[in-house]
Amino acid sequence: MTIDKLSINLATVREQWDLREAVEACVRHGIKAVDPWRDQVTKLGLAESVRVIKGADVHVSGYCRGGMFTSPGAIDDNRRAIDEAAALGAECLVLVCGGLAPSSRDLGEARKRIADGLAAVLPHARANHVPLAIEPLHPMYAGDRSCVNTLAQALDLAEALGEGTGVAIDTYHVWWDSALEAQIARAGRLSKIFAYHICDWLVPTRDLLLDRGMMGDGVIDFPRIRRWIEAAGYRGFTEVEIFSKFDWWMRPGDEVLRTCIERYKATLR
Amino acid sequence: MTIDKLSINLATVREQWDLREAVEACVRHGIKAVDPWRDQVTKLGLAESVRVIKGADVHVSGYCRGGMFTSPGAIDDNRRAIDEAAALGAECLVLVCGGLAPSSRDLGEARKRIADGLAAVLPHARANHVPLAIEPLHPMYAGDRSCVNTLAQALDLAEALGEGTGVAIDTYHVWWDSALEAQIARAGRLSKIFAYHICDWLVPTRDLLLDRGMMGDGVIDFPRIRRWIEAAGYRGFTEVEIFSKFDWWMRPGDEVLRTCIERYKATLR
Repeated sequence: MTIDKLSINLATVREQWDLREAVEACVRHGIKAVDPWRDQVTKLGLAESVRVIKGADVHVSGYCRGGMFTSPGAIDDNRRAIDEAAALGAECLVLVCGGLAPSSRDLGEARKRIADGLAAVLPHARANHVPLAIEPLHPMYAGDRSCVNTLAQALDLAEALGEGTGVAIDTYHVWWDSALEAQIARAGRLSKIFAYHICDWLVPTRDLLLDRGMMGDGVIDFPRIRRWIEAAGYRGFTEVEIFSKFDWWMRPGDEVLRTCIERYKATLR
Repeated sequence: MTIDKLSINLATVREQWDLREAVEACVRHGIKAVDPWRDQVTKLGLAESVRVIKGADVHVSGYCRGGMFTSPGAIDDNRRAIDEAAALGAECLVLVCGGLAPSSRDLGEARKRIADGLAAVLPHARANHVPLAIEPLHPMYAGDRSCVNTLAQALDLAEALGEGTGVAIDTYHVWWDSALEAQIARAGRLSKIFAYHICDWLVPTRDLLLDRGMMGDGVIDFPRIRRWIEAAGYRGFTEVEIFSKFDWWMRPGDEVLRTCIERYKATLR
């Protein structure tokens, strides 16, 4: 079974390695694609990060992340993120759209600011050929991270915005949704699946942000969701993204990558 | 401002008082309705719980809880819960429908078992005049507590089941949903709002189950949701239900009740 379509989101090994070490390790394990985070790129410097990635000849399945449109300075910051994504040759810029504005309880207003922010940065993204992948986040992040909480909502935005906008589907955020199969099919019809991330939901979950699971350790039915994604025509990378302060961030990076590969293969069944 | 329509879910003071003490305290504070939990009733005994509640002349805005249809023995257990609710004169039996079955990852199957379980207990509920209030739970409980995670899903079930079934709307579980206003209006058209619970979402939330907030301490826009509930024609009790191991369960019960009253009044604005 091939791993040609496996990508590693570098947050998965962020506590073990910097960007250079992580990319070298991925190459060592035969992994063909990565998704770096902005803080990792900043730490190494953009020019050097580009050299490392081009030198290793790995694909960049996405760049994490833009968005946060309810925070001050978001538009300029997203334009810079688009420039970085373009320099890295990323297939898309992943957007976590932002939660409620500071000291606001107005979800409607936050959602309007998100739509307006997306529209404001889209011309720059199009000019630089960087697709914008709106990632719906689990509803437990509506307060502080994203008021876009279902695939239906993300697709409504992408459909309204048009060319150059799509969605990043992360199993961790959407697995619970009774509309998931229908919305994945809709995303396929619209040709708007720009990224597919995998990560398991643990029972119990001990931390709202940093207790995500390796595929197989939780309750998500990966083969089923994969069939829906394939039926929708998606042929891109499957990216493993796991924030795990109690478990995987504590283990040697090589063990983490070996496990990602084994478990990824199991999700193809 | 009157508190005639305020109810206290007795889980809110479960660490401070047993059922008898909690009911006496509610009366002392001028509170006219309570919602007891089954374990509280079991501890005191059903007959004595009925005596305490009738003697105090408080309404029983609901009884917590039935459901858990994906667990073994659920049907018989729900019939007993219905009997208890009838004895207590509860306005409804609140149902937390159950998460994935043990060692299953099949959400579709779990949802089918929930629908079948509801249908199986409904005749007994109707015969005993106990309305069944399906409570959609926040999507973060889909694994272990309920695969009914949106108001739309709960209403689909209640609509299909018909007479004697409705929904319990708890702000904590549904506040994030972009379809909330429309689904509350739909619930009103169907005359299916059987209960309305309030509880705030804290940022950050430190525990998935037991870090719920007092109204005003979190990010939920209570006056707005209240307007939607009233526009939908709901005139029943507003029930405060807060599980709070870090905060309210640590404080004197009288302080908790005083705060519930103050904050409840603020949600009416």
